[in-house]
Amino acid sequence: MALDKSKKSLTRTHFSKDLKNLQIGAEIRVAGWIEDFRDIGKLGFLTLRDVTGAIQAVLLGPNLEKAKSIPRQSNILIVGTIKPTKSREFEVEVAVKEIYVYSEATQSLPIDPTGRIESNLDNRLDSRALDLRNPKISKIFVLRSQVLKIIRDFFILNNFVEVNTPKIIGSASEGGSNLFSLDYFKRKGYLAQSPQLYKEQLILSLDRVFEIAPYFRAENSHTVRHLNEFLSVDIEASYLDYFDIMDIIEELVKRTLKYTIESHYHAGLSSSESKSFLGAVDSPFPRLSYEQCLKDLGGMDEKISFGDDLSDSSLRKLGEKYNSFYFIIDWPLDLKPFYIHENDKDPVLSKSFDLQYGYLELVSGGTRQHDINKLKYRIQNQGLPIDSFTNHLRAFEWGMPPHSGCGLGFDRLMMVLSDLPNIREVVLYPRDTSRISP
Amino acid sequence: MALDKSKKSLTRTHFSKDLKNLQIGAEIRVAGWIEDFRDIGKLGFLTLRDVTGAIQAVLLGPNLEKAKSIPRQSNILIVGTIKPTKSREFEVEVAVKEIYVYSEATQSLPIDPTGRIESNLDNRLDSRALDLRNPKISKIFVLRSQVLKIIRDFFILNNFVEVNTPKIIGSASEGGSNLFSLDYFKRKGYLAQSPQLYKEQLILSLDRVFEIAPYFRAENSHTVRHLNEFLSVDIEASYLDYFDIMDIIEELVKRTLKYTIESHYHAGLSSSESKSFLGAVDSPFPRLSYEQCLKDLGGMDEKISFGDDLSDSSLRKLGEKYNSFYFIIDWPLDLKPFYIHENDKDPVLSKSFDLQYGYLELVSGGTRQHDINKLKYRIQNQGLPIDSFTNHLRAFEWGMPPHSGCGLGFDRLMMVLSDLPNIREVVLYPRDTSRISP
Repeated sequence: MALDKSKKSLTRTHFSKDLKNLQIGAEIRVAGWIEDFRDIGKLGFLTLRDVTGAIQAVLLGPNLEKAKSIPRQSNILIVGTIKPTKSREFEVEVAVKEIYVYSEATQSLPIDPTGRIESNLDNRLDSRALDLRNPKISKIFVLRSQVLKIIRDFFILNNFVEVNTPKIIGSASEGGSNLFSLDYFKRKGYLAQSPQLYKEQLILSLDRVFEIAPYFRAENSHTVRHLNEFLSVDIEASYLDYFDIMDIIEELVKRTLKYTIESHYHAGLSSSESKSFLGAVDSPFPRLSYEQCLKDLGGMDEKISFGDDLSDSSLRKLGEKYNSFYFIIDWPLDLKPFYIHENDKDPVLSKSFDLQYGYLELVSGGTRQHDINKLKYRIQNQGLPIDSFTNHLRAFEWGMPPHSGCGLGFDRLMMVLSDLPNIREVVLYPRDTSRISP
Repeated sequence: MALDKSKKSLTRTHFSKDLKNLQIGAEIRVAGWIEDFRDIGKLGFLTLRDVTGAIQAVLLGPNLEKAKSIPRQSNILIVGTIKPTKSREFEVEVAVKEIYVYSEATQSLPIDPTGRIESNLDNRLDSRALDLRNPKISKIFVLRSQVLKIIRDFFILNNFVEVNTPKIIGSASEGGSNLFSLDYFKRKGYLAQSPQLYKEQLILSLDRVFEIAPYFRAENSHTVRHLNEFLSVDIEASYLDYFDIMDIIEELVKRTLKYTIESHYHAGLSSSESKSFLGAVDSPFPRLSYEQCLKDLGGMDEKISFGDDLSDSSLRKLGEKYNSFYFIIDWPLDLKPFYIHENDKDPVLSKSFDLQYGYLELVSGGTRQHDINKLKYRIQNQGLPIDSFTNHLRAFEWGMPPHSGCGLGFDRLMMVLSDLPNIREVVLYPRDTSRISP
């Protein structure tokens, strides 16, 4: 049955969440899928769900007969009136006058979207659209949409300009080993791994910029926290240093935590998780120097020397000792990319930070090197091909202001907010070494 | 001179736009670049610009001497006090106490960012960050950022959920000839040309979705309105038909026009352009059937038969006859992609629309085919490999609601809003057949 403008009776009047605000007796048309149907003799109860929630529809006579023949998960429109209910799950119910079937579902579904029969993640991802009919799953992605809005509004409030930088790039700067390459009209092109060089150039004139966009990493590893395509939140700002950026990021993350708690998303979380979130909102994130980390780890029997990167195991131990969220600052310069500024108090260190949640790195940032000669030295010192940076380095001759910035792994933030251990749970169609479709 | 948290004197207190609201005598620190400097003997006038505007700084004595030696476009901080001005260009001026030089610009710049010496577009794009110091250029991108916000807020207000679909895809659906391909861990992958299949699947559960993201087209052509990487605004909605989508898009475009006019961006436009925009905001966009177009074109000596696509020349003639914005609806089904629904009043036609601005196509959309058998027939009828659609077609067995949607070329909308004839003017780092860097 096709929708037709001439048949206004076939279009819905309300989302399911709106029904509780209507008066008893109000006429409504609600569309969605049949989640459940119970036939108790002369009466039937049908649970109709849409993205906003579910309604209970009460069926009698010919409508009850009709409902018996419609497979679950089929897409229907219910025409009816609001009436009081005795159900504990619903605030009102709908006395059905008519049912229109838009589209029947097949009887052998690949997964059970009510969640009564559990499916493994691979099967769910293969049938993602159906998987999303499980309200526990769809609410992750509704939250994701809302958190994106919170982030953008926060940056705009703070005078950042949204920019769009290219995802196809002409040279493998930033080290080329992890880049996907492609044929670009008989030249070699690459997929961008970050907007790092572009965002640094742009602050020359736009002052503060942000971008939320997909990036690509050709890394052949399979973990619960890496994907080969991921959404990154990037900012770059003139005249700020890495402490300013940490302040901005801390406030931003707290806003997303607060929203998650207030929107009752946390009903799905364990109470210990909720408690840890509430604590994080109210107190400053600890800011721990790399050298302090070494001292702490020394006391925990972790063998680690100055200049070593922090392993997963080290980060897990630190995560237990400190609060859920914590910054690690002032890393050895040699552990950080060429564009990070040396630290004034000790040039072996850098003006850098990572924001951690337990063992998980969420954000990496720092004050940038804006002196062209020091920058050239660092590029060469890291064994990178200086010729690939010709275009980039020119911008540092045009009156480049001091600047700082960071990149936040948005999918990882969503793992934390929704308390899910695998990044694939919070990405609609994840891309990893073995998954390129659907 | 590096920024340092311990030297608070080196951080700015205001953007240039804020100075006019301050009291005479107020102490300020403003950062930016030297746009101009005039030495008139015992006195000097320096124009300092940032992304929000410009200030006039008045220099005397040692500060005047120091300013003489700083190249234009260098990045500096001015410490001073607000005083009244006799200048017509500025509402106040700044009596300079101190100048700090953050970063000197080289004396031989590749382009003149004040715009006094015109540069061709290619040179400007090669030095984009410097080009953006021209306020006429930067305001295009500030507007771009604001229009993105207007669009997202409008969709969220209308119950759309923001989604992120993958840009690397596993099969060349939608016809593979225009896709960039890449090696994806020893398999072949492609860069997505649109989120069409994903967004249709997602409305199965999320009801209404939108995405604003980069897409890629490997088309070897060079025009002023095509790029090989472009930003697309995509929506898809259950239970709506193509007239509903046209209503949504018309309101959205009018909001962006209204904002552009109200934000005085139009100071840069010709008065005829402004008048045409004002007219468009206040009256409905004409909705012209394809068959009406054929009749109109017949009367204009354009040779065109039913089933022919409308050429640039035809669209230019229609654009002159009708309002600046106009819809062309009910195209022949064979001219439209497989996922477009046939028209109930004549199955040779489709439920489709394009939104045009003159000859420029801004939006393409329609009611989608949600009957799996008709969809399979259309895929095969168009000579597409049905096996590439296995994953996609499964979703149509799960109770797929009727739905409609469209894609809006965001860069093209920005061409219209900023009245610029070349799409490269409104994209920071455009990608075309000959341009892959910077």
